[in-house]
Amino acid sequence: MINKLVKKIQETGAPIVVGLDPKLDFIPKSVQKEAFDEYGVTLEGAAEAIFRFNKAIVDATYDLIPAVKPQIAMYEQYGIPGLIAYEKTVSYCQEKDLVVIGDIKRGDIGSTSLSYAAAHLGSVKVGDKTFAPFHEDFCTVNPYLGSDGVNPFIDVCKKEKKGIFVLVKTSNPSSGEFQDRLIDGRPLYEWVGEKVNEWGADVMGDSYSSVGAVVGATYPEMGKVLRKIMPKSFILVPGYGAQGGQGKDLVHFFNEDGLGAIVNSSRGIIAAYKQDKYAEYGEDNFAEASRAAVIDMKEDISTALEAAK
Amino acid sequence: MINKLVKKIQETGAPIVVGLDPKLDFIPKSVQKEAFDEYGVTLEGAAEAIFRFNKAIVDATYDLIPAVKPQIAMYEQYGIPGLIAYEKTVSYCQEKDLVVIGDIKRGDIGSTSLSYAAAHLGSVKVGDKTFAPFHEDFCTVNPYLGSDGVNPFIDVCKKEKKGIFVLVKTSNPSSGEFQDRLIDGRPLYEWVGEKVNEWGADVMGDSYSSVGAVVGATYPEMGKVLRKIMPKSFILVPGYGAQGGQGKDLVHFFNEDGLGAIVNSSRGIIAAYKQDKYAEYGEDNFAEASRAAVIDMKEDISTALEAAK
Repeated sequence: MINKLVKKIQETGAPIVVGLDPKLDFIPKSVQKEAFDEYGVTLEGAAEAIFRFNKAIVDATYDLIPAVKPQIAMYEQYGIPGLIAYEKTVSYCQEKDLVVIGDIKRGDIGSTSLSYAAAHLGSVKVGDKTFAPFHEDFCTVNPYLGSDGVNPFIDVCKKEKKGIFVLVKTSNPSSGEFQDRLIDGRPLYEWVGEKVNEWGADVMGDSYSSVGAVVGATYPEMGKVLRKIMPKSFILVPGYGAQGGQGKDLVHFFNEDGLGAIVNSSRGIIAAYKQDKYAEYGEDNFAEASRAAVIDMKEDISTALEAAK
Repeated sequence: MINKLVKKIQETGAPIVVGLDPKLDFIPKSVQKEAFDEYGVTLEGAAEAIFRFNKAIVDATYDLIPAVKPQIAMYEQYGIPGLIAYEKTVSYCQEKDLVVIGDIKRGDIGSTSLSYAAAHLGSVKVGDKTFAPFHEDFCTVNPYLGSDGVNPFIDVCKKEKKGIFVLVKTSNPSSGEFQDRLIDGRPLYEWVGEKVNEWGADVMGDSYSSVGAVVGATYPEMGKVLRKIMPKSFILVPGYGAQGGQGKDLVHFFNEDGLGAIVNSSRGIIAAYKQDKYAEYGEDNFAEASRAAVIDMKEDISTALEAAK
């Protein structure tokens, strides 16, 4: 799957992942109304509104981008109907040949991580039948429990040719509270980065490993160091746009081959129509506004990467 | 809810939480067959078998115990039907007046943690209606992202009178990989423990805080130190029984008031009938075997606590 991700980034020229993190606030009233009229002002109605919103954005952008990243919390908060919409979103994006990164940030003791890995990347047996419940292509994993919490995911990656992104340095303001603390003179996130490099060595694709890392765009200097520590790991970079990261902050996350990073934008793309810059599209053309925002983001990153050459 | 947990521990004299982590392997063939006959050899069939198994164990033990801890991964691996069984299990246990600790180990950047907190402890608005999707009483939280990943859970705890257990020192063999690394001379888990103490100060119940901690029974010496660092936090102690922890290892997790810890056993209780010790019950009386295992566990802990006095 890492090979597919690399190939799609090369084909589209866009190291971009669209974060499908729909809040009801982002969804135009007309889309909400249609869903509520059909399914009631219920969790089912909310979930249907979310799926329709996602579908419109995917239809308007799938030819420009290699991947999407649905954040499962945004679906989980709408309970079972929300999680049905999550799985439908994964399926629909895969039909459009997009790589789907499930942003699930799971991680537990070994036997439990095995169940999460089965749920999201692998499959589960019931009698003599096999089911793949959420079937994402990649998922994000929390490393706090150490190797035996991560290895079950890697085992499933090997078997199913899938991938993971391990949280290394997250984009949020207080990520430094633990992640930046110095251990033998180096911050914790560097030690986690060393482990990511080690975990990834055993699951190499053609040029990159199936074990990637999450490093926030909001910490570009740290990205520079981590890029060197994990030369074969793709870096999933959240925090661009709404969280404050800009194109020029991103250059250090990439390798000299112009690859090695994929930058996420959620609100900046899916709620683009709410920005002054794209207001001309109007609420009804929210998906077109998202398309314009993807094009602008691609341009911003290309310009920054060119300038850094 | 922390007050209710304390009260129920006092009433039952059992600082025990039963981990409802059903694997299909644990479920007697007769229970599986009934569910499969009715729902097919499908995810729905598996989920129904899990729920019936849970229900029988809860019916046989609820008068002896204060709380249960369903591990959501075990349900999530059976997809949507599995998560329906999870919610049904939560509801059924609450009907039996048990405190339900959702072992979900979620944690993300602030806005996303807010959605997880709504999903599991709080509620979500759709139009003018409010829904509480999974409505656990407590849930477990991963601290790797720092305060702004944890605070949204605490805010919901305040509002809804619920609680959390933050992962501090986990029970698995490689938990030390990052958690034990020394920062200014003290292991990371102690720094996380300090934060738990700080986070908890603002959400005190009568004698304990709504912010507890997870510390594995497999690391009793560390438990001793952490007990002192977080005097007002309840410690949820996994790793008893199948993972190797014993009654005598547990004494340091308790305070002098005989409270302050609640010990989890999953396999050791729910699959008791598979142990030589309880084999006489036979597969069909699995729930009675679970009841016997709860009584023995209560005795083991009481004896150890008495001996330590």
